[in-house]
Amino acid sequence: MGRWEPNARGRLEQAALELYGERGFEQTTVAEIAKRAGLTERTFFRHFADKREVLFAASGQLEDLLVRTVIEAPDSTAPIDAVAAALEAGGAALYHERARKRHTVIVANAELRERELVKLASLASALAEALRRRGVTDLAAQLTAEAGIAAFKVAFEHWVNEPDEKDLPQLIRESFDELKAVTAGK
Amino acid sequence: MGRWEPNARGRLEQAALELYGERGFEQTTVAEIAKRAGLTERTFFRHFADKREVLFAASGQLEDLLVRTVIEAPDSTAPIDAVAAALEAGGAALYHERARKRHTVIVANAELRERELVKLASLASALAEALRRRGVTDLAAQLTAEAGIAAFKVAFEHWVNEPDEKDLPQLIRESFDELKAVTAGK
Repeated sequence: MGRWEPNARGRLEQAALELYGERGFEQTTVAEIAKRAGLTERTFFRHFADKREVLFAASGQLEDLLVRTVIEAPDSTAPIDAVAAALEAGGAALYHERARKRHTVIVANAELRERELVKLASLASALAEALRRRGVTDLAAQLTAEAGIAAFKVAFEHWVNEPDEKDLPQLIRESFDELKAVTAGK
Repeated sequence: MGRWEPNARGRLEQAALELYGERGFEQTTVAEIAKRAGLTERTFFRHFADKREVLFAASGQLEDLLVRTVIEAPDSTAPIDAVAAALEAGGAALYHERARKRHTVIVANAELRERELVKLASLASALAEALRRRGVTDLAAQLTAEAGIAAFKVAFEHWVNEPDEKDLPQLIRESFDELKAVTAGK
């Protein structure tokens, strides 16, 4: 095997998700992931710190996308709609079978579920900071970001649990509409 | 020391919070907590499974209070207002110096912060279930509960970080008002 391995990262992710699904996260070793991907353990560790990191490595990119979308929204856009647009863009980026498989692995493991909650809390903080940079007050920024993440989380869980019913960005839009309705006392 | 120790549980909680604040959570042992409370380790373990449990044991009572308040709200109360009333009642129960000390200990430790997020997620699930029992649809119940917990979390953090400014139930009311304003696109 040569030093240049095309799409090593993607192949490792794919292999890891397959094995986590087949055997469970705890039972899978890095050696097995590398073998399934046709790569070495050394290559694995060039891309990921450990087997947990395979599941969470993409959240930095997602955060960048959310922050950029909020900051670039037109000045006239209400904060809640800037956050909705950002999470819809995030949903469009996540809208593939791999995200669904990843979620199935995460819900099956308490430690991974905790980690996922931490990542969601960190996305909410990043969104709040982006809103403050738009001049939104601290309290409004925090509430908009946290409520937005709540809408995203609920939509994502529905999408995972009801395959092929609706696409994720559409579910996110509906979730924000419902959020607006329930907070209006409907 | 006799077998009957008045308010052993409260004394252990008090001693634990003092020590966690003075030395840090990791550096404190159960033996030290028992000693500070003037009790034995055996008594400690009659009340708590481990030193982490001291910080989270009350969350079952809080959950019961929230669920009961939602279920007992008048039929005419909008779901979001039933949740606000529940969390205000929860805030009134938590509105004492011990809750503030507890929070300071938790934010200083990554593992405890994760645990706290799990407890908040579990409170949101319990609130959503209580709303479904009131006949609220699944999606509306989840969004109302998650958005409500977001409002509570933001209010609680403000209360912890700005001592003596406002009382917690008042901050929770203001947080819900702000939540309604931001989701209305203001």
